[in-house]
Amino acid sequence: MAIRALVWGENLHEQKNKAVAENYPIGMHGQIAKLLSEDKNISVSTVTLQDPEHGLSEARLNETDVLLWWGHAAHDMVDDVIVKRVMERVWQGMGLIVLHSGHHSKVFKGLMGTPANLHWREAGERERLWVVNPGHPIAKGLGEYFELEYEEMYGEPFSVPEPLETVFVSWFQGGEVFRSGLTYRRGAGNIFYFRPGHETYPTYHDANVGKVLRNSVNWAFNADRHAELMKAPNTPVASSIEPLVERGAKLTNADHAGEVAGAKK
Amino acid sequence: MAIRALVWGENLHEQKNKAVAENYPIGMHGQIAKLLSEDKNISVSTVTLQDPEHGLSEARLNETDVLLWWGHAAHDMVDDVIVKRVMERVWQGMGLIVLHSGHHSKVFKGLMGTPANLHWREAGERERLWVVNPGHPIAKGLGEYFELEYEEMYGEPFSVPEPLETVFVSWFQGGEVFRSGLTYRRGAGNIFYFRPGHETYPTYHDANVGKVLRNSVNWAFNADRHAELMKAPNTPVASSIEPLVERGAKLTNADHAGEVAGAKK
Amino acid sequence: MAIRALVWGENLHEQKNKAVAENYPIGMHGQIAKLLSEDKNISVSTVTLQDPEHGLSEARLNETDVLLWWGHAAHDMVDDVIVKRVMERVWQGMGLIVLHSGHHSKVFKGLMGTPANLHWREAGERERLWVVNPGHPIAKGLGEYFELEYEEMYGEPFSVPEPLETVFVSWFQGGEVFRSGLTYRRGAGNIFYFRPGHETYPTYHDANVGKVLRNSVNWAFNADRHAELMKAPNTPVASSIEPLVERGAKLTNADHAGEVAGAKK
Amino acid sequence: MAIRALVWGENLHEQKNKAVAENYPIGMHGQIAKLLSEDKNISVSTVTLQDPEHGLSEARLNETDVLLWWGHAAHDMVDDVIVKRVMERVWQGMGLIVLHSGHHSKVFKGLMGTPANLHWREAGERERLWVVNPGHPIAKGLGEYFELEYEEMYGEPFSVPEPLETVFVSWFQGGEVFRSGLTYRRGAGNIFYFRPGHETYPTYHDANVGKVLRNSVNWAFNADRHAELMKAPNTPVASSIEPLVERGAKLTNADHAGEVAGAKK
Repeated sequence: MAIRALVWGENLHEQKNKAVAENYPIGMHGQIAKLLSEDKNISVSTVTLQDPEHGLSEARLNETDVLLWWGHAAHDMVDDVIVKRVMERVWQGMGLIVLHSGHHSKVFKGLMGTPANLHWREAGERERLWVVNPGHPIAKGLGEYFELEYEEMYGEPFSVPEPLETVFVSWFQGGEVFRSGLTYRRGAGNIFYFRPGHETYPTYHDANVGKVLRNSVNWAFNADRHAELMKAPNTPVASSIEPLVERGAKLTNADHAGEVAGAKK
Repeated sequence: MAIRALVWGENLHEQKNKAVAENYPIGMHGQIAKLLSEDKNISVSTVTLQDPEHGLSEARLNETDVLLWWGHAAHDMVDDVIVKRVMERVWQGMGLIVLHSGHHSKVFKGLMGTPANLHWREAGERERLWVVNPGHPIAKGLGEYFELEYEEMYGEPFSVPEPLETVFVSWFQGGEVFRSGLTYRRGAGNIFYFRPGHETYPTYHDANVGKVLRNSVNWAFNADRHAELMKAPNTPVASSIEPLVERGAKLTNADHAGEVAGAKK
Repeated sequence: MAIRALVWGENLHEQKNKAVAENYPIGMHGQIAKLLSEDKNISVSTVTLQDPEHGLSEARLNETDVLLWWGHAAHDMVDDVIVKRVMERVWQGMGLIVLHSGHHSKVFKGLMGTPANLHWREAGERERLWVVNPGHPIAKGLGEYFELEYEEMYGEPFSVPEPLETVFVSWFQGGEVFRSGLTYRRGAGNIFYFRPGHETYPTYHDANVGKVLRNSVNWAFNADRHAELMKAPNTPVASSIEPLVERGAKLTNADHAGEVAGAKK
Repeated sequence: MAIRALVWGENLHEQKNKAVAENYPIGMHGQIAKLLSEDKNISVSTVTLQDPEHGLSEARLNETDVLLWWGHAAHDMVDDVIVKRVMERVWQGMGLIVLHSGHHSKVFKGLMGTPANLHWREAGERERLWVVNPGHPIAKGLGEYFELEYEEMYGEPFSVPEPLETVFVSWFQGGEVFRSGLTYRRGAGNIFYFRPGHETYPTYHDANVGKVLRNSVNWAFNADRHAELMKAPNTPVASSIEPLVERGAKLTNADHAGEVAGAKK
């Protein structure tokens, strides 16, 4: 069965900025979906910020294996309920690909536990992405490096946790560098951050970018869901694996009052 | 100058449960502070949930190098403003030692980006902490392992990100294991999670536990603060490091409306 | 096309020890191969220490995607030429699954850069392997834990580098713990160390062990080979990506005499 | 007591190449030692390839806390006995700072378990080292980045294991990037690889380079030595921590013949 990818688009600048609209007549989400659809193993659809529940209803997420997230100007308009829902899905095994300015999305910052800050400059400069981890599945089929002639610069330090693996490092014409492809696991969910994708440039028409996106969806896919990771269950003494005799003082039920309902103790 | 450690205590069960009160007549925070004070390089003080701003005012945090956090039953009573403040301090370089049931604190879950769930059992069983990383500064002066005859069991899977390093792994009498000492960096802040510390047992009277706590404060200490990590500044083309000529389409000021104030773009 | 797995067996104790021979009438390598053959996506064959070139000729390795290594008493009998050859294959993308006492093989120690020491006890005790990373592909289809009623104990500290991810942690009846499933990447090659497998016990007849082995072969598989990682080429100034004018003093050809032939400078 | 740093220099090109000799009239090792001596907490001395045992006798290493290694053209002239000795010292807790072309030293490749290859170009081009991990002790006191106007280029992929943490990433004028500051732990020993340092340029006269070297020595220092990590001892059933009754079949003493003497079983 194909991997069910869902592209989430903010879909704002396509409506307001002429250059963006010309770059992406079918929307950025539409163009990203088009890149993914070149892989017959991926079944792709799109939703946007403007959809009810931002398109991320429980039902929709039930049918999603890997979510791709492009947002920029309206991170604060994303409802906290939906943010929490997406994070919980990732913890249970849904893959997540965070694109470019999505580094400042509530979902990404929430999953990283850091501000995910960086330096930036919008000057249409050259970016060269070097493959520093050629054996990683996300780099499959790429050369030593690939270039994007027009990109926004993101500069280090990128305040994110040390990744599981660094896949790409970018060189920028203006003198900066950036760790442009980073992998994480949070709970049972695989996360990939991929730097390029400024809306005023034709990044999502680039063949190498398409390859990376398709590779990353295949890499992030996990067919299983781990609902058990959402709970902190008590393991009663009576059913302990090894024989165990209860000892020592205990908390009372009253002591437990106030604890997170359904969570622990 | 001594490292300024601040012990944050929930200070609830000491007031309500006789066994806890007897174990910790000066409060758990008080006893933890006492362990730290054995190190002349550490200057220690305590605050509790009940203090104004939970004792974590801006002024107080200005004077704190490493914060230790023990909480259990009242995680939800900790004000979100304070949670955010503590997280921001960690990102800028304050050390954080999270103790036992603090795994479910808002601060820890927020910094991990995961639910930090686990299995648990309160049966006064034997815990044996093995040093799996003998060269780590936090394990300095310990033997191959140390035992706590009475402890609460925490069992895997512990849903936290893969750590920078695993320092301890626990064996439990009832048949479980747990990664009991884990290090992280978030922004410029060092974080150590240390598993033992159930309130109905005398854990914070144990000599090895004291050693680990003192080691961890020394390890987590970072004299510098990195306020620059809290911003995502624009680097103007005019002041680019390498010569750069601006090209391509741009977003307008109107496009930037709605972005996070003071944060990015 | 199926993944081509090759099981390497030391094949000594099967010949000398009655219990081992009874456990593994088709050899340990034969039994491991049998477990792998349950996966239709895996095409498996076996070689042993006694074969010419220990069965690991260039031709044979050309047809190998993932190598599984079981050795114990004769690590020193493995020719250094073959050790180097296997390591070079891993660096270029061949997967490697190191089993049990293979932790002391020259190949594993060479790839880890550490002595890979541990404590051990042969007492037929109970081992319980906890899944600490339930979303990892190698843990797919397993429960929270699985048990091996008879196993040799390996105890921490296991002197190996911090892994990419820890998949299993073992509890032992006698009181020890061990990180029993560890992943690494060296060059383009995926490596998995899996602890159980003592020859006097029926470990390789266990259904869960079979599942882990099949999962690990699927996880370690990389169809590509990266011969370019075996070289340190000069990038001439004349063909630099960005325009570059040579400056400063240089080494002479004579200075380079003595350098590693074909390697660097 | 001061940290005892020992600088190991190949000391060849200083003797043969006029530019190198002019850059480093007291030898590269001498100049590196001079940079370290600015820290009153560091007591520094030097040895070279030409010394008996390359200056790395057991007695000398007994008095060494952190070893710095600069070599380039004569890696193959370093005796394997000394290489093994140095690696064993690192495993037991001696710190190691590997400089520039030392990436191809036997010691570094042996500790990494990888070929440590890369691309290179000697063109006196500009290198800009960005601090990607500003809270790391090795980056203490540095700005956002520092520049070396004349350096040799090293380009990715650098075939080394994923580090514990990446501290620096370099931008090169000719278009390449490189992970220029990487930390590892092998056994109980801390390892830092620091990229700059080509002998025909005045790199070791740079104030920021000096700061990094001093920081790295302080970071790598571990006062303790862990000889126990060099052994794989048997833990007899009779002295098991938890009560244990021996069961199952066993290997015989004859089965153990051929095993690594003094190592395991």
